[in-house]
Amino acid sequence: MVTRLSHFFLRTLREDPADAEVTSHRLLVRAGYIRRQAPGIFAWLPLGLKVKGRIEQIIRGEMADAGAYEVHFPALLPREPYEVTNRWTEYGDGIFRLKDRKDADYLLAPTHEEVFTLLVKDLYSSYKDLPLTIYQIQDKYRDEARPRAGLLRGREFTMKDAYSFDYTDAGLDASYMAQRDAYERIFQRLGLEYVIVQADAGAMGGSRSEEFLHPTPVGEDTFVRSAGGYAANVEAFTTVVPDAIPLEGLPEPEIFDSPGTPTIDTLVAHSNAVLDPPRSGVAGPATDGATEWTAAHTLKNVVLALTHLDGTRELVVVGVPGDRDVDDKRAEVAFAPATVEPATDDDFQRNPGLVKGYIGPWSQTGAILGEESATGIRYLLDPRVVDGTAWITGANIDEKHVHSLVAGRDFTADGFVEVASVRAGDAAPDGSGPVTLARGMEIGHVFQLGRKYAEALGLKVLDENGKLVTVTMGSYGIGVTRILAIIAELNNDERGLIWPSSVAPFDVHVVATGKDGVAFDLAASVSADLEAAGLDVLYDDRAKVSPGVKFADAELVGVPQILIVGRGAPDGQVELWDRRTGDREVVPAADAIARLTAR
Amino acid sequence: MVTRLSHFFLRTLREDPADAEVTSHRLLVRAGYIRRQAPGIFAWLPLGLKVKGRIEQIIRGEMADAGAYEVHFPALLPREPYEVTNRWTEYGDGIFRLKDRKDADYLLAPTHEEVFTLLVKDLYSSYKDLPLTIYQIQDKYRDEARPRAGLLRGREFTMKDAYSFDYTDAGLDASYMAQRDAYERIFQRLGLEYVIVQADAGAMGGSRSEEFLHPTPVGEDTFVRSAGGYAANVEAFTTVVPDAIPLEGLPEPEIFDSPGTPTIDTLVAHSNAVLDPPRSGVAGPATDGATEWTAAHTLKNVVLALTHLDGTRELVVVGVPGDRDVDDKRAEVAFAPATVEPATDDDFQRNPGLVKGYIGPWSQTGAILGEESATGIRYLLDPRVVDGTAWITGANIDEKHVHSLVAGRDFTADGFVEVASVRAGDAAPDGSGPVTLARGMEIGHVFQLGRKYAEALGLKVLDENGKLVTVTMGSYGIGVTRILAIIAELNNDERGLIWPSSVAPFDVHVVATGKDGVAFDLAASVSADLEAAGLDVLYDDRAKVSPGVKFADAELVGVPQILIVGRGAPDGQVELWDRRTGDREVVPAADAIARLTAR
Repeated sequence: MVTRLSHFFLRTLREDPADAEVTSHRLLVRAGYIRRQAPGIFAWLPLGLKVKGRIEQIIRGEMADAGAYEVHFPALLPREPYEVTNRWTEYGDGIFRLKDRKDADYLLAPTHEEVFTLLVKDLYSSYKDLPLTIYQIQDKYRDEARPRAGLLRGREFTMKDAYSFDYTDAGLDASYMAQRDAYERIFQRLGLEYVIVQADAGAMGGSRSEEFLHPTPVGEDTFVRSAGGYAANVEAFTTVVPDAIPLEGLPEPEIFDSPGTPTIDTLVAHSNAVLDPPRSGVAGPATDGATEWTAAHTLKNVVLALTHLDGTRELVVVGVPGDRDVDDKRAEVAFAPATVEPATDDDFQRNPGLVKGYIGPWSQTGAILGEESATGIRYLLDPRVVDGTAWITGANIDEKHVHSLVAGRDFTADGFVEVASVRAGDAAPDGSGPVTLARGMEIGHVFQLGRKYAEALGLKVLDENGKLVTVTMGSYGIGVTRILAIIAELNNDERGLIWPSSVAPFDVHVVATGKDGVAFDLAASVSADLEAAGLDVLYDDRAKVSPGVKFADAELVGVPQILIVGRGAPDGQVELWDRRTGDREVVPAADAIARLTAR
Repeated sequence: MVTRLSHFFLRTLREDPADAEVTSHRLLVRAGYIRRQAPGIFAWLPLGLKVKGRIEQIIRGEMADAGAYEVHFPALLPREPYEVTNRWTEYGDGIFRLKDRKDADYLLAPTHEEVFTLLVKDLYSSYKDLPLTIYQIQDKYRDEARPRAGLLRGREFTMKDAYSFDYTDAGLDASYMAQRDAYERIFQRLGLEYVIVQADAGAMGGSRSEEFLHPTPVGEDTFVRSAGGYAANVEAFTTVVPDAIPLEGLPEPEIFDSPGTPTIDTLVAHSNAVLDPPRSGVAGPATDGATEWTAAHTLKNVVLALTHLDGTRELVVVGVPGDRDVDDKRAEVAFAPATVEPATDDDFQRNPGLVKGYIGPWSQTGAILGEESATGIRYLLDPRVVDGTAWITGANIDEKHVHSLVAGRDFTADGFVEVASVRAGDAAPDGSGPVTLARGMEIGHVFQLGRKYAEALGLKVLDENGKLVTVTMGSYGIGVTRILAIIAELNNDERGLIWPSSVAPFDVHVVATGKDGVAFDLAASVSADLEAAGLDVLYDDRAKVSPGVKFADAELVGVPQILIVGRGAPDGQVELWDRRTGDREVVPAADAIARLTAR
């Protein structure tokens, strides 16, 4: 097909859009791929739609090869299935809800586990029907609090979501691997580097869960990996729990004055000034050989306010080694579906038992927090705070701390929680060595949901023995519009986009320059030859536009192969311009055609 | 591609769905094409998605040939543009509205004139940019009061909607004809018989408007056509207005007792009993030569209650010849955007001036309705009630009527209105003769919107003289999912669907029967050969399913060409089965392949 630019619905913009925060957003708007309609909601112009279509075709091809069948669910769905699984409530403000004229509740679906489960329940009844993987490429909705970064975090977005159905765990493993393998091929065909990291199954419920992250310093996700092959996002990272230390012979706790020590740094300095230095073996957690007190010897107690789904508010205190912070994302996952925020002054006023700045699990009067306390506030500890470790921490008295406070003797937790920040050098949980931290963008996600949805919605089949068994499911997602934005984010220069040929809106951008009819005639005939060879051609046939403007537009639009027909046309010469390398080469028209069609 | 039924996501149902009102709905559900999710909201299963995709590809091809470019707007749009054109209000309960977490108003768009207008306003500024036609194939939403008939009237549905932009009326005409021609080609390729009828532009505003109707007795729309080529839907039909009759010498009105005449029939019988017979020339409207009173001599006055957009309720009285009714659909169009319902008892009680069953525009006391009356109620007449016509009608006194009441002398209207029912034999307004009535289903609609949207939203371009001119627009819609249902409605028999080959989900349905490995081997090899020739093959390779079930499934699914491989396999013989004609023929496998691939 040859598309003539003189008629094509394309207008490039000289100015960046005022609201563009990231390169992909800026360039996709300027080059005429998308237009904003509302926060996080975009219209797709012809160029954008073509790139999106090519990405979708790659995904469809790999889904077919993986034995998955395409279906299509509506965006508008009734409340009931989402009520059964509690997600109607769990999504909180994150989804769009509406009522129809009969006052029935609907939502714009953010994901479709429930209705896929019900569809299979409707149609299938025997183990012989399984395994099954079905998918859709469909527009989804989330009412993001802060839609931003153009297509990277929109409120309407296109996703490929697949769901697998098996009746054995081994079957689920196989279906999961088929999708995981398909994802690897998809990202390879899209030219997108990826790392597969362990992820927390989070609100989706379920067991095995991995994310495909594209590693990039500007990614919004942090992940860790070890030289030995471990990789996980920080939310899924689990701490290696040290061995407990025998309690016998450990010094007794001692309260000491600590005026003016509101921070860990000031507390450490003060401790080094007034306390004896740490003694090997008894000053835990990580002090063997330490001759000075450090932040790692202190126990930081942070008060968090959880809001549960039923609206109730609960204060919890988490204790983490003083050399770490409470990581917001890890806390979010650890406490989901409750939401987490720091305790307010109001919370402290209502709980005078907690002395702000000097909170600790123990005081002169005995246990303040934990199992034997009377505050009724849950006390959750970092897994590193094993029995026998000794800490400097608040004494729950203004301007006083306590040292030699021993876990498992002087205080106990109501439970353990993975909320402490992860650091380079932390041990990978699989023993594969210390981890490093990196940033990435999520480009895909594969989940073993297990039986959660099938149980909630009653999806069972008869097995070989005629016994009803609950089906086990997987869920597999790729954000199509997000991937398009990431590809744009990675493939550009200061003059515009540079598409990988696998997803470019056109195969070749032919530019006729000058006022010479010969150039336009040759450009038209070259375009027709390229079309005949099966290429999709954008032909800039605009009569009254200068070569400079045409070249600038070509660079902005980003078709990877540009063919200029101008001065050399009378001699049958054209210029091949590689948008990515910038290389330009004058060759006979026939050679140019041969080279472009040989790819 | 070969799709093996043993793995394919397809389950046919033996039972009709309980809620299916029409054949297409019943068969599409039973044959595994769609599944209901909520009233008027369906999921698309693989077979349905394939047919839908083929229809969309035909439309895309013709749109490209017509020079239209594809874009894609979101379903979720902000209120503001629809507020400017007043459609946010005009749609009443007919659209889905919602709020986001910041309490901003959104709608699920039922049609996209506003945002297409704004897009072109954003990007274009000169007459040189025009003409332009852009379109999308997109999921739309309407909150129908009574979603029914499966896909024929859904609440979520896929439409192709195109919009043209010109700066001259002649340009609009050309753009309109290009889309109209494309529609003709689309329906021809889909094998859908159509009639192009004049339509009322209605709530869309604008001038020229035509509908493509598929003529069928079960259609929900009524249209009229004349042998001379006139065709219009009943809403758009206009009455040929008779010449006025001189008032001189016409008899004076006379009130007469008419006990027990609550209906036109009883009134006519009573009139023939108590009045002198009609006299030629003075008893109008249509009485030349009539020797008896008929319903056509009576004037029926109907009280309607309008609800205007601002919520106010207004009573109007419409007067139509007694041999016609007020047609609901014509009234709906005539009074739009107000909604119309019959007056209630309550309305009559509040307006004692109107004597129910005996309403008329005149009584002993003079004008009751119309220009000189004091009721304040608008009186609107059928265009046939021209000056000089004489009528028998209510005297606005219980059990009394009046005869010889002359329009233009004894009463006058506040206006004329086209709400009377249309009948076979009525004169076409273009003089092409009497019309007949027929029923049809709407399959497409082309509109000249004119400058309404461009004016409201400020879409102007500079013309050749550097003067800003308002753009004129057209709007062109095809209901993709509706067309799919209509094709299913027209192409079936008692055993299932029979798709036209242009939109069938597969080109060939290969059925292997028996337990003979030879049959399955041959079927697999024939399927592979058909695939190699570019055909899309559904191969029923199920091992433990009887031939009877396989044939029943094949007939239900409705692929037009079925190829059976069974008993004759050892001799290389297969059976070709034409699903539409039922013809079955045993031929060598190679011949079958040659015949199927020659199409």
